[in-house]
Amino acid sequence: MSDVLPVLRVLGMLVMLFALAMGVPLAVSLHQQDGVWQVYPIAMAVALVSGSALTFGLRRYQRELLPRHGVMLVSLAWSLLPLVASLPLTLACGLAGRPISFTHAYFEAVSGLTTTGATIFTGLDALPVSVNVWRTLLQWIGGMGILVLAVAVLPMLGVGGSQLFKAEAAGPVRDTKLTPRMTGTAKGLWGVYGTFSLACVLAYWLAGMEPLDALMHMFSTVSLGGMSSHDASFGHFRSPLLEWIAVGFMLLASCNFALYFIAMRKGHVREFMSDPEMRATLGTLVGVGLFIGLLLWIKGVYAPVEALRQGLFHTISVASTTGYASSDYLGWPVFAPVMMLMLSGVATSAGSTGGGIKMVRMLILFKQAQRELTRLVHPNAVQPVRLGGRVVGSPMIFSVLAFMLVYAATLILLSMVLMLTDLDPVTAFSAVMASLHCMGPGLGAVGPTSTYAVLTDFQVWVCTLAMVLGRLEILSFLALLTPAFWRR
Amino acid sequence: MSDVLPVLRVLGMLVMLFALAMGVPLAVSLHQQDGVWQVYPIAMAVALVSGSALTFGLRRYQRELLPRHGVMLVSLAWSLLPLVASLPLTLACGLAGRPISFTHAYFEAVSGLTTTGATIFTGLDALPVSVNVWRTLLQWIGGMGILVLAVAVLPMLGVGGSQLFKAEAAGPVRDTKLTPRMTGTAKGLWGVYGTFSLACVLAYWLAGMEPLDALMHMFSTVSLGGMSSHDASFGHFRSPLLEWIAVGFMLLASCNFALYFIAMRKGHVREFMSDPEMRATLGTLVGVGLFIGLLLWIKGVYAPVEALRQGLFHTISVASTTGYASSDYLGWPVFAPVMMLMLSGVATSAGSTGGGIKMVRMLILFKQAQRELTRLVHPNAVQPVRLGGRVVGSPMIFSVLAFMLVYAATLILLSMVLMLTDLDPVTAFSAVMASLHCMGPGLGAVGPTSTYAVLTDFQVWVCTLAMVLGRLEILSFLALLTPAFWRR
Ligand SMILES: [K+]
Ligand SMILES: [K+]
Repeated sequence: MSDVLPVLRVLGMLVMLFALAMGVPLAVSLHQQDGVWQVYPIAMAVALVSGSALTFGLRRYQRELLPRHGVMLVSLAWSLLPLVASLPLTLACGLAGRPISFTHAYFEAVSGLTTTGATIFTGLDALPVSVNVWRTLLQWIGGMGILVLAVAVLPMLGVGGSQLFKAEAAGPVRDTKLTPRMTGTAKGLWGVYGTFSLACVLAYWLAGMEPLDALMHMFSTVSLGGMSSHDASFGHFRSPLLEWIAVGFMLLASCNFALYFIAMRKGHVREFMSDPEMRATLGTLVGVGLFIGLLLWIKGVYAPVEALRQGLFHTISVASTTGYASSDYLGWPVFAPVMMLMLSGVATSAGSTGGGIKMVRMLILFKQAQRELTRLVHPNAVQPVRLGGRVVGSPMIFSVLAFMLVYAATLILLSMVLMLTDLDPVTAFSAVMASLHCMGPGLGAVGPTSTYAVLTDFQVWVCTLAMVLGRLEILSFLALLTPAFWRR
Repeated sequence: MSDVLPVLRVLGMLVMLFALAMGVPLAVSLHQQDGVWQVYPIAMAVALVSGSALTFGLRRYQRELLPRHGVMLVSLAWSLLPLVASLPLTLACGLAGRPISFTHAYFEAVSGLTTTGATIFTGLDALPVSVNVWRTLLQWIGGMGILVLAVAVLPMLGVGGSQLFKAEAAGPVRDTKLTPRMTGTAKGLWGVYGTFSLACVLAYWLAGMEPLDALMHMFSTVSLGGMSSHDASFGHFRSPLLEWIAVGFMLLASCNFALYFIAMRKGHVREFMSDPEMRATLGTLVGVGLFIGLLLWIKGVYAPVEALRQGLFHTISVASTTGYASSDYLGWPVFAPVMMLMLSGVATSAGSTGGGIKMVRMLILFKQAQRELTRLVHPNAVQPVRLGGRVVGSPMIFSVLAFMLVYAATLILLSMVLMLTDLDPVTAFSAVMASLHCMGPGLGAVGPTSTYAVLTDFQVWVCTLAMVLGRLEILSFLALLTPAFWRR
């Protein structure tokens, strides 16, 4: 049990960092005079006091963290930080005369931090603007991972970051291509992220968005979060140009950021272009987008050019786990929304800001299945699984397969729990899937023109759990439940 | 290409065996004077002529079959024998003034032979009784596997049966516990099957069914097929006693027949009782049945005793892949029908007459996932996967995992194809699932009170393919598509 104390100490530092982040909505609130500025100093004070109490009260537990600690920290962080993040939401909405429940505030904070981007608020356009800035900023913070941030900053504070970085799940092939020095790597990733963010906000602004809208939609785009400051989401702007810009940045953010980092740092452009996962991610997103565009044209839903844009924008938005919508795609032929939702589970790369199973796992599984088919007929054929020229060892294949299994079990279990509360199968499965993939809008009652507010509080908590499990790629969290974890 | 000739020769023999089986409906038709007896001599003649033409025309290709041949024979048999089986259906329905299309006749034959038991006919009670006998008999033949039959009989005709037995998929741990002599084994399995059949028909008859109804429902029960001679399925009888008898025989038929064989032959009763797969199958069926009974009681659908019976009967019927219904369970709380349908994919044992993934694969996967969770925290722990005291080797685990993957891919792919034809997601997914598990009724438009006749011809063919893929456990069929299969 004393294990938890050094972990709580680090958690205290993260809480203090959150207090700093609240400076952004505070500044916006003061500048825009949206009438809720008082909320932010209060929330900041609470965060600073509780954070520093943990950090300084437990300073004698400062030590190098073990793998066990890493898993514990990630789980605690993703469970408790939303509490801190939800504080300004609760206070500001109350002050603005639109009180929200604890369940809803916590859901919204988790939805932001996990970059799910599902919303439980209605009347977004009428909210104090600083609330929308805070909602969308949470995605931007969560996009690169709170723990990557910690790795970049905390070593200065005397905490060994390597264990954190390992525990923060970022797909099965993490570490392999990065520099040995974790701190440098984390800073490099944030550098890439910052560059994309700057480019994105400028592009949105130049293409016609108001500056604050550009900022908030940049937060949602590069993090693949998908929250908007408007109820109509991207449909508010009625601008094909803005949609194409979003498509470009969503594609960028769907690939492994370490690849960009290495390409920029070492100039390995050819290695970058030949990365099998990146090619598969981009090929899938654009290929299926074109197919759905074609379908919309053939079925007569839109004229040809419009069909192509609608198909590409929505497929890439949903499948990259962003979840922007500019029209109600649930009215399309049923194949399209289901295909897009399922694709959100597999399309994005490991090390991107996207959610889901990650493309590299699908590639490994595909090659493994191919090998099994061959072995069925030629039982003695020896043929290792290869990916991008490298041999993928058996332990890696096993762990990918186990991941798939736990993923499927989680999906089915949580959906069945929702159905036990008499939710219809389409809404239940799609809500869990959209939450688990950190995507956002589902089908049925939680479609792109609806919100999760149609669910009961219990159902909302199930979806909240699904978002956290999805962001942690499930296994890290489940490890906590095994007896082996608690054994010395 | 010359590879196919020895295979076609064996196929000819199977076609001739089918001609003999038509003697059963012929006898019933003559005895009951249902007015379509002329149909059977015609169909028998066609089968005998084409079968003997293949067998004797290709007699110089008589040779020991290779693994490649086994896969080919199974695939050809499951594609072409339904043609023979559908002939009496087409002729008899035509003669009775109720013509059916080729698509529907083929679907019904595949549904019978794969023991899916889904029907595309309406007005079953008004059909010539010999047609119902033939429909249900097909399940009984298919139940133990046309190819097990072939193994038992064909060696007398000079065909090596061991390859066939291997290619006929019967779960991942086949061969291990059986006698070395395949012929003896196959005969032993038929002995068990015959004993259960006799007991079942007697029990149904003594409990009040008409003799022919008892025969037909025995065919459907021990094969876990689930076809009925009545539109109202088991609801026709309004007899709790008959439902409890059905429950007993469905539970028996859901376990590995080789276990019964070994228990009877060697008296290994303790080994029999401690088989982990059997315990898991029975525990799952009864446990979930009780849970659903409880749910029906708590939600106020039925009075306590009625809730228990309804829950157990329908859960065991659907999850054992039989698919009998005595009431419209789609009206129950949504959790129940979805749970029952999903359970049909995993509950039955390998070597039973049931369909789906098979319980032993789930056990292996569960243990493998458990091991992975441990390894996440203790990376150096060496811990083999064990099942029933035996170590399960890596190749077996790999092939189970690959199977799961191909199963999931098939399920998703075929459902997406159905959705491309604008079928709603619930009907599409459940129809493919119910077909792939060789279960029968789905949800939505293909529920227990409906038939597959609501689907278009194209959709019916997709479900037909799913039934064959399910029965072949997919992999054997997919092997045909790999280049390695065709290489020498
Ligand atoms: K998202
Ligand atoms: K069945």
